Amino acid sequence: MKPNSILGLSHGFLLGHLQSPGLDFPKNISVIEVCPKGMGPSVRRLYVQGKEINGAGINASFVVHQQDVDGRVADVALGWYVALGSPFTFATTLEQEYKSDIFGQQGILLGAVHGVMECLFRRYTEHGMSMLAVYNSLSEDGKREFEAVYSASYYPCMDILYECYEDLASGSEIRTVVLAGCRFYEKEGLPTFPMGNIDQTRIWKVVMMAQVITSLSLLDQSSTFLSNIEVLRKKGHSYSEIINESLIEAVDSLNPFMHARGVSFMVDNCSTTTRLGSKKWAPRFDYVLTQQALVAVDAGTPVNQNLLSNFLSDPVHGAIEVCA
Amino acid sequence: MKPNSILGLSHGFLLGHLQSPGLDFPKNISVIEVCPKGMGPSVRRLYVQGKEINGAGINASFVVHQQDVDGRVADVALGWYVALGSPFTFATTLEQEYKSDIFGQQGILLGAVHGVMECLFRRYTEHGMSMLAVYNSLSEDGKREFEAVYSASYYPCMDILYECYEDLASGSEIRTVVLAGCRFYEKEGLPTFPMGNIDQTRIWKVVMMAQVITSLSLLDQSSTFLSNIEVLRKKGHSYSEIINESLIEAVDSLNPFMHARGVSFMVDNCSTTTRLGSKKWAPRFDYVLTQQALVAVDAGTPVNQNLLSNFLSDPVHGAIEVCA
Repeated sequence: MKPNSILGLSHGFLLGHLQSPGLDFPKNISVIEVCPKGMGPSVRRLYVQGKEINGAGINASFVVHQQDVDGRVADVALGWYVALGSPFTFATTLEQEYKSDIFGQQGILLGAVHGVMECLFRRYTEHGMSMLAVYNSLSEDGKREFEAVYSASYYPCMDILYECYEDLASGSEIRTVVLAGCRFYEKEGLPTFPMGNIDQTRIWKVVMMAQVITSLSLLDQSSTFLSNIEVLRKKGHSYSEIINESLIEAVDSLNPFMHARGVSFMVDNCSTTTRLGSKKWAPRFDYVLTQQALVAVDAGTPVNQNLLSNFLSDPVHGAIEVCA
Repeated sequence: MKPNSILGLSHGFLLGHLQSPGLDFPKNISVIEVCPKGMGPSVRRLYVQGKEINGAGINASFVVHQQDVDGRVADVALGWYVALGSPFTFATTLEQEYKSDIFGQQGILLGAVHGVMECLFRRYTEHGMSMLAVYNSLSEDGKREFEAVYSASYYPCMDILYECYEDLASGSEIRTVVLAGCRFYEKEGLPTFPMGNIDQTRIWKVVMMAQVITSLSLLDQSSTFLSNIEVLRKKGHSYSEIINESLIEAVDSLNPFMHARGVSFMVDNCSTTTRLGSKKWAPRFDYVLTQQALVAVDAGTPVNQNLLSNFLSDPVHGAIEVCA
């Protein structure tokens, strides 16, 4: 790149990749970042909707990572955010951005959704219940079921989420993605390993059933959601970043897409990093829920009342109200 | 340690851990390694059996990693191997040893066994077949079923195994184990995350069924086994190491233990690195077989005849005869 030019990023992945072997950006350029908090197709769709619907668009965080002497790069970053049609922006760093973004995809936004649905689908079909019966039963026994599942799955989910975050922060996850990218091509006399789609198994073919489970899985996702927030909070992320990576991206971008086209379509059409992350972490959520949480529910383990009262009184609810 | 003393290791994990931040062993000591290729309880049991049964004992690889001037360390390593009652030893390096050992645990020895059994248990119980019916059907249609499953699962298994190996060789897996070890204790205001056992779900409670599946899963493990060998061969490991890490450890150490006490007991009673690896990689094998291989079998995808003829003519069979 020419000296004094501006490198504009839409993801902090490159910083993680450079840091691993101790490299850095050239010092004679500016580096900024503007990151829409949603998948590509919905960034475009909500941009177009913005012509007619006030407030449409995907939130974007922004970063001034390094700047040259002319001091105009913050204006360029903010101009870029406006041009994307984002209704809201907040400042972060490349490092905080890539960690929270990839962590969110692996956890509550995609990986956990995929794994939790596989786990619950198996549980209810194994027990011989029709999905509709399960769905209808929710209104009566919903609260009790919610408490038992929430209580039993909070720490198992946090266990996996904590591992996600620390693997990512240590550089391992970025390296895994780069190595997987190299395996898309032949090397060392081994064949290519392109990514397979997840959409061929029975669960994803039973569309109506899957939609009902989506509602059902909210039960189990609540605990993933709160433990997702707790890990990001403990790791020092701002509330703007936490809420955008845990909730707003789901509500504005992923959930509408998922309801329109299904979970498997969403997973199979995201970025390489997201797809690899979802395929890597979904089965971990599935297994930890099956082997730890649901075993505890079935054994009638008493509900952890502290967890429930923390859920109701968590300051994140106030932060969500401000962001909403 | 005192200058000129000998550091004796039984696993190369420490080298991987030191290499990650660019550290090394002190230069004024000798470093050797003698590694029994089996889990602790069986090393002891076969040592005791060696009193009465000629040839009992667990094979061990040995390494002279660095030596001081007196030149006696190779003798010490070989003496140690003899004292362990190992019937056979072969030379390797710390690096080759930890990579092949951890890779073997994650793959064919434990991780794949755990994941393949979960996958097949679900498949056959979902289809409403009793395990005995499946088992009895093997004699008639065994060959055809074997070919279809072998052909469909070879590359999906290799995909996961390749990822296992490269994550390990890049230092990520070692770092993951170290980070998980830190999470066994409270830190950053988050609670402890001790490892849970896997033995509470239905599959592991239905002991007879699980034993039948063990035989069944050999079908599917054959492809994991051959792709396990292919990855180690492509990565430059010796046949002694390949056969010991893929087959002899299973036959001499793990399989007898598994048949006596069950797969879940074996997984729940191995070393921390092994347990973490099995819990991390088992669900990956399960998902890739379910989402890719079995979908191909059910769709009637033609058998890849090259894979089958490679299976029959693979030079590894000759190496196994020499080692047996």
